[in-house]
Amino acid sequence: MHYKIVPIGYIKSKFKSRDEAPKQGFLTEEVSEIVIYDEFKRGLIGLDNYKYLIILYWMHKAKRDVLFSEIKNRGIFATRSPDRPNPIGFAIVKVLSIEKNIIRVKYLDAIDGTPVVDIKPLAEEELDMR
Amino acid sequence: MHYKIVPIGYIKSKFKSRDEAPKQGFLTEEVSEIVIYDEFKRGLIGLDNYKYLIILYWMHKAKRDVLFSEIKNRGIFATRSPDRPNPIGFAIVKVLSIEKNIIRVKYLDAIDGTPVVDIKPLAEEELDMR
Repeated sequence: MHYKIVPIGYIKSKFKSRDEAPKQGFLTEEVSEIVIYDEFKRGLIGLDNYKYLIILYWMHKAKRDVLFSEIKNRGIFATRSPDRPNPIGFAIVKVLSIEKNIIRVKYLDAIDGTPVVDIKPLAEEELDMR
Repeated sequence: MHYKIVPIGYIKSKFKSRDEAPKQGFLTEEVSEIVIYDEFKRGLIGLDNYKYLIILYWMHKAKRDVLFSEIKNRGIFATRSPDRPNPIGFAIVKVLSIEKNIIRVKYLDAIDGTPVVDIKPLAEEELDMR
């Protein structure tokens, strides 16, 4: 039993490998570009009304058969390791510009070439329940 | 070209249909349960150190061929509609209790029976870049 996900685009980043990437997006000031494939471009209309976006991406270099991190001595759902059954990465990014199908952002930790699977606007109240 | 995701568990909720569910998790005080399948249980070790979790789930009732919302007059990536190419839902939930393979949480908008695909601990600093 499984579901299929399709890339809607990919990430251009200065981070070329897992070793180079920060552990979390908010730990870097580097600018990345999210390139959306032409067939999904229509989905971006109105995105320029938002300052912060949720980006979901597919960590294509991850190992999927790991359930426990020996290094951290914790189950992988208690870590942010890319190695997990469904290696879907999550970042809240700040939008710098949107031009045609290219979104320039800050605070993205994904490596160069990472497939993007979803973009959602962030409701700022969403973070205020704490 | 696609990737395969596997459910790691499912959600038990009072919301039985899309019409009953709130538009966002933070709009409800209802308690939901996340049931993790036995084969993934080991991944939960250490999760009880976290107060807030990121839940990714598969919105199995969604339409995947929608790119533009006529009602909202925006592209679907500028909405939180379940109808999108990869219907992965995102919520930040508050943990109430974890017993064996069942996590009781608040602030989850998913409907009853929704497959869960990932759980990540929330780094609270992550939300502070705004």
